[in-house]
Amino acid sequence: MNYQAYAAPEAGATLQIIPLELPSLAHDDVRIAVEYCGVCHSDISMIDNAWGISQYPLVPGHEIIGKVVEVGSQVKTHAIGDTVGVGWHSRYDNECCECLNGDQNLCANHQATIVGHYGGFSDMVQAQATSVIKIPKGLDLAASAPLLCGGITVFNPLLQIPVRPTERVGIIGIGGLGHIALQFLKAWGCDVVAFSTHLDKKDEITAWGANEVIDSNNPKAISACKPLDVIISTVNVPLDWSAYLGQLKPRGRLHFLGAVLKPVEVPAMLLIQQQRSVSGSPVGSPVNIEKMLQFSARNHIKPVIETYPMHKVNEALDHLRQGKIRYRAVLTNRH
Amino acid sequence: MNYQAYAAPEAGATLQIIPLELPSLAHDDVRIAVEYCGVCHSDISMIDNAWGISQYPLVPGHEIIGKVVEVGSQVKTHAIGDTVGVGWHSRYDNECCECLNGDQNLCANHQATIVGHYGGFSDMVQAQATSVIKIPKGLDLAASAPLLCGGITVFNPLLQIPVRPTERVGIIGIGGLGHIALQFLKAWGCDVVAFSTHLDKKDEITAWGANEVIDSNNPKAISACKPLDVIISTVNVPLDWSAYLGQLKPRGRLHFLGAVLKPVEVPAMLLIQQQRSVSGSPVGSPVNIEKMLQFSARNHIKPVIETYPMHKVNEALDHLRQGKIRYRAVLTNRH
Repeated sequence: MNYQAYAAPEAGATLQIIPLELPSLAHDDVRIAVEYCGVCHSDISMIDNAWGISQYPLVPGHEIIGKVVEVGSQVKTHAIGDTVGVGWHSRYDNECCECLNGDQNLCANHQATIVGHYGGFSDMVQAQATSVIKIPKGLDLAASAPLLCGGITVFNPLLQIPVRPTERVGIIGIGGLGHIALQFLKAWGCDVVAFSTHLDKKDEITAWGANEVIDSNNPKAISACKPLDVIISTVNVPLDWSAYLGQLKPRGRLHFLGAVLKPVEVPAMLLIQQQRSVSGSPVGSPVNIEKMLQFSARNHIKPVIETYPMHKVNEALDHLRQGKIRYRAVLTNRH
Repeated sequence: MNYQAYAAPEAGATLQIIPLELPSLAHDDVRIAVEYCGVCHSDISMIDNAWGISQYPLVPGHEIIGKVVEVGSQVKTHAIGDTVGVGWHSRYDNECCECLNGDQNLCANHQATIVGHYGGFSDMVQAQATSVIKIPKGLDLAASAPLLCGGITVFNPLLQIPVRPTERVGIIGIGGLGHIALQFLKAWGCDVVAFSTHLDKKDEITAWGANEVIDSNNPKAISACKPLDVIISTVNVPLDWSAYLGQLKPRGRLHFLGAVLKPVEVPAMLLIQQQRSVSGSPVGSPVNIEKMLQFSARNHIKPVIETYPMHKVNEALDHLRQGKIRYRAVLTNRH
């Protein structure tokens, strides 16, 4: 079979079609015909080698939904024809403490789907069965692709912190991640507050689940916000974090999902006096990705997407670089 | 009755004897004849008005053990003759969410024992019954005074985080707080690591409970330390916090008790990638102070103290300012 993929030949390059040569199928691998693949900021960071870990030719794409076409000799959990998803991780060692504790997403020996591995901007991907997630019935497949990375990134802290339905929770940044977070939190039962620079989108933000929309460019509006139990930041730019810490209730927590590069400055007294904390988390374990998908199906969680045929991948990436995507781009091979 | 106290007439002053005029006993107050009172760094911060909240004449002292001599009309929990303790807090509002949740130590309307209130460097103190803790039998009273503030400060995070007996826990700074923390953690069953600048005290530090003693001035020794579940900092000087964060296991936590004034710089990626957190906490609730005292009695936890007669309070303060105290000074009226 001749497969093809869209690859960056070098850092920052436009993607080009390449013939895709997949390694032979390991006993625990699953081969998946890609139907949809979300486009995430991390794909751009990897194309650009922003984190210094890229290998070229680089095939991006780690919000994959497709159909199983072949399974390794030892795979019993998936069958040909299953509709499945793959996210940031496509292999775990399945033997370290983290894996054995159900924290596969913290496995130090994981294989990232687009780091030295061919991702989903392609016809076909291959991934370890453990990292391949069943897609429950009832989900819109195209719109659900972004759940595999963006979705689980904002869902996992609700399980990990954990966030309780009685709590008042703020989301900083209402973009690709934030607009999904609002939907999850509304379905979770929380009192939801959105901190956004785009007050022109207030109606949309409210519709997704925010009970209050606060202008994150206005320090007075932030300091007038009633205290929150949890604030989750989805942005990757430095903000006045002390201003947000100051709006946390006793025992409150500021949680980072956005990989802001400038260190976060935390006055220790803001932590000590009111027993607050600052934390972060990456994507989620396979079990929790599946829980998220089931939760999404049950509660009609649906990312807002723009769909592009796979061959228009460079157009989708350009729009994402220009901040034009509302709110997540999804590539499709179904055209 | 004529009571007296040792008071700072103005910021930074030597303490002087003053006649102590206590307010009339409220219906929920308890009056306590001071037998022992620990000397804490916070007393010096308050004498010096380092936090800008001091009121003069200022009577320091918030690690108090004594005997009840009078109770208010509504007090049913304490009786004349009881041996009791008072720590950083001497009143709560008992009606806010935090109080009603058992987090009295986070009550925004608390009365601090030495902020606009006369502390324990005196014959007599007065405190709300809720904040007055029964001292269980079996404790050395003089040596237990430091438990009322220093002790609960290091004990409370074990309950709050919570620390599990199967965990590997580091303590940064083996002084007044740290040497008590080691004893608690040993009795808690943990694998205990001490980070200290005083490797000359290694034998003592090991005897208190540390399985490993690491030179906190040696970055290579820190980075060679096997990963920890929790690191608790008792120091109030800025350190290379990223170096400690890097030694935390996945899900690990760096917890601050020492009010370091320079903001803690936290790279968000160190939190996100391994789901780590940074947090802090102040003293503890009355119920948790009582649990700590019972735990201490049962497990023979005993702060190492130097005892001074109350009239030598200025000598004790001078020694503390000079860093000479091994490891906590306690004033006594029993002389």
